[in-house]
Amino acid sequence: MTNIHRRGFLLGVGGATLAAAASQQPLPDGSSKVKSQSADDVTRRIARYVVSARVENLPAAVRKEAKRTLLNWVGCTLGGSRHETVDIAVAALAPFSGPAQASILGRKERLDVLHTAMINGISSHVLDFDDTHPTIIHPAGPVASAILALSEHRPTSGSEFINALVLGIEAECRIGNAVYPAHYDAGWHITGTAGVFGSAAAAGKLLGLSEQQMLWALGLAAAQPVGLQEMFGTMTKSFHPGRAAHNGLTAALLASRNFTSSEHSIEAKYGWASVLSTSRDYSRITEKLGETYEISVNTYKPFACGVVMHPTIDGCIELRNEHKLTAGQIARVELRVHPLVMQLTAKQSPQTGLEGKFSIYHAASIALIEGAGGVKQFSDRAVRDAATIALRERVATVVDSALKEDQARILVTTTDGRRLEKYVEHALGSIQRSMSDAQLESKFTGLAEDVLPADRIRRVMDLCRNIESLPKAAALARAAAV
Amino acid sequence: MTNIHRRGFLLGVGGATLAAAASQQPLPDGSSKVKSQSADDVTRRIARYVVSARVENLPAAVRKEAKRTLLNWVGCTLGGSRHETVDIAVAALAPFSGPAQASILGRKERLDVLHTAMINGISSHVLDFDDTHPTIIHPAGPVASAILALSEHRPTSGSEFINALVLGIEAECRIGNAVYPAHYDAGWHITGTAGVFGSAAAAGKLLGLSEQQMLWALGLAAAQPVGLQEMFGTMTKSFHPGRAAHNGLTAALLASRNFTSSEHSIEAKYGWASVLSTSRDYSRITEKLGETYEISVNTYKPFACGVVMHPTIDGCIELRNEHKLTAGQIARVELRVHPLVMQLTAKQSPQTGLEGKFSIYHAASIALIEGAGGVKQFSDRAVRDAATIALRERVATVVDSALKEDQARILVTTTDGRRLEKYVEHALGSIQRSMSDAQLESKFTGLAEDVLPADRIRRVMDLCRNIESLPKAAALARAAAV
Repeated sequence: MTNIHRRGFLLGVGGATLAAAASQQPLPDGSSKVKSQSADDVTRRIARYVVSARVENLPAAVRKEAKRTLLNWVGCTLGGSRHETVDIAVAALAPFSGPAQASILGRKERLDVLHTAMINGISSHVLDFDDTHPTIIHPAGPVASAILALSEHRPTSGSEFINALVLGIEAECRIGNAVYPAHYDAGWHITGTAGVFGSAAAAGKLLGLSEQQMLWALGLAAAQPVGLQEMFGTMTKSFHPGRAAHNGLTAALLASRNFTSSEHSIEAKYGWASVLSTSRDYSRITEKLGETYEISVNTYKPFACGVVMHPTIDGCIELRNEHKLTAGQIARVELRVHPLVMQLTAKQSPQTGLEGKFSIYHAASIALIEGAGGVKQFSDRAVRDAATIALRERVATVVDSALKEDQARILVTTTDGRRLEKYVEHALGSIQRSMSDAQLESKFTGLAEDVLPADRIRRVMDLCRNIESLPKAAALARAAAV
Repeated sequence: MTNIHRRGFLLGVGGATLAAAASQQPLPDGSSKVKSQSADDVTRRIARYVVSARVENLPAAVRKEAKRTLLNWVGCTLGGSRHETVDIAVAALAPFSGPAQASILGRKERLDVLHTAMINGISSHVLDFDDTHPTIIHPAGPVASAILALSEHRPTSGSEFINALVLGIEAECRIGNAVYPAHYDAGWHITGTAGVFGSAAAAGKLLGLSEQQMLWALGLAAAQPVGLQEMFGTMTKSFHPGRAAHNGLTAALLASRNFTSSEHSIEAKYGWASVLSTSRDYSRITEKLGETYEISVNTYKPFACGVVMHPTIDGCIELRNEHKLTAGQIARVELRVHPLVMQLTAKQSPQTGLEGKFSIYHAASIALIEGAGGVKQFSDRAVRDAATIALRERVATVVDSALKEDQARILVTTTDGRRLEKYVEHALGSIQRSMSDAQLESKFTGLAEDVLPADRIRRVMDLCRNIESLPKAAALARAAAV
């Protein structure tokens, strides 16, 4: 035995002195003993809400917005479904897929529910054309991808589907609100990190989880955040919501069989919010739960790229059209932009369409040249166009912290010395200038026209608008596949 | 058009003044333009090393340690294979599994490669009996689970397997070294967060990825960290290495088809190390790469629980045996322990065996009563044993920052007033008192005896010891299945 005297172990003193001689440790026992709800019991409160919320209690305006969100998501997913990113993911993972349980939108392949959720999640985000919440979460991707695939395996009515969609979005966006902007500013891609809660909650709702099981599903979700901003401009960006759908669905399936997890996964000392964010406001998760709905502040993009570039594109298109500008007339472009623009979209020389979606220089140039910011303006071809490259080298940026995220100031100096300016107070597609139903349908048609025949496009839009009356939500998935 | 004069946009000044009037933004373009290797190009350097490293260059001692690591991992996986955690995971996910491509160790089910990797990863960790690196990474779980399953789908020789095992462990542990302890102290379960790099690198090696593809595989891995310490004591803890195996394998498979990602996923401003850790030392990733091997400092547990409790268990067993103590003779137990013991294992009243693995009170009590710390001592039955519960209520703890992680001081006061002490300088199983080959084989036999017949146990151990001569590593997986 080692000589413990020599090492200072005081044999002559009892426990009390021993305790006083060193720092007493608190007892951070976060185990399952604590069953009651406290003010801080936020994971339980969101779990309880999701488990108990009924579609009959959703206000009509919320249900309407859910159908707009669904329509926009289906359109974006169809539009992205033939992208090389999706081709690769299907080719790489199909050899490991389970039974042909669910439909990949816009394609002929059918994969198991988990892989289908992932692929549809990738398709829905690859064009960077999907919906946006004020936290910059793209809410539908993780949630709708998970539950539409699940609805083909487990019979789900259209109204159950809409309820789960709203609740999943509620969970992910409220949890996102609690950590935004610190969590986002740290470099996380919040759609994948908060989104996994959304897919777990929504899938868990359809699986009929108990409150206890929903707690575990959220715990399994908390352990699987996906996505770093470093991946922007690569295929991995769209992998994030796809994988979040896959992870949340896996979490809900495991929890449905009583796979245990923490019951305090969000608020615990070593839980999701503390580990993944330097600041937290848990009241954003629980305040007015069941009274206000995050889907009410969801927005839809008119342009197929990072939302922070939208005010610039909007203003450039307006300047071009007002002054009938051509590229040759433009000597210099100066952009004053929100700080996030330069955090997220500062790529000066994009080489691919995906990189172009994160280049404010490309976005301004192509908007001035083509008067548009759609899928074609962010293709591989577009970023390699000589005239666009030449113009983007004449674009300069200035960060202006006084601007809001949906604002920009643009100054174009022409070769003949004119100074043309535009201030965008609220970008097209922002909550103040939200896309109308007609604009959303036009966007949908444009996205789907190379994927589905015209009559099928109309049928899929009808199914989105009428989803609440469908006995089986799966009918939508089947109609949107090839 | 909004009046931009009123809003302070100075039309009278040119670009230079505009630029000077607000903070000029640096250009953090992390795109694929930068192809050359710089001192900071750590992701590329680890990718290049993994792609180019050859088994012939591994020192004999490294190959020997790899086989010890493999033997220990197979034993732990067999021992955990019948745990309720694994039963649930298989039942929940089998309906979504692809073809029966790979063998679940210790069980009869065969699932696709991805699900098999996940299930074996869960089995290997569920007893908390697996290997431990100084970063507290359990290195084999994510790596061996991924590549053993893959070896059944893609022909892999035993020496290729050992090379990939060493390289995967090298990647995950070096990346772990770069952020330890800050990353761990923040609450991440490092086995799942760094482990995903290990499974991606090892699977990518077997898939023959190019340097470019390996960079993308590491990028996809960086985007998918798994695991929070909050999950300790629940089934989700063992899900972490299982999911890390699944995620890394998915990353490598996608990269093998040219699914793109960041090329600077570790060291970029919004990359893995900056986002997931408050401090970083990238030299730990690149220093002596190919000269020293992290597997050389891998250790193997003699006790089936969190490694930070090992010195306490070791000392309690010695005290019991030296003094022939019975529970009734013990009035009080005082433990002086490293701070991590109270961070990780402070559960006072564990209700399940899994929680018992994170209760220093249970660990000390059961070690004093039964003179052991094996699988049976951390079962549901053991934590509910009345005598153990009664004794653990007489256990007090004191944090002592002067102690190292493998040290503890124990003071037992007997009912007849004796004061019995024990100082453990290096716990059994630590690098200074590493398990011998014979001890590892005895551990293996104990873990496997209720799972496989005796002759099969001997055959599986032989296959581990002789893996380098096997034409197909898959033979090991098949022999270890039921």
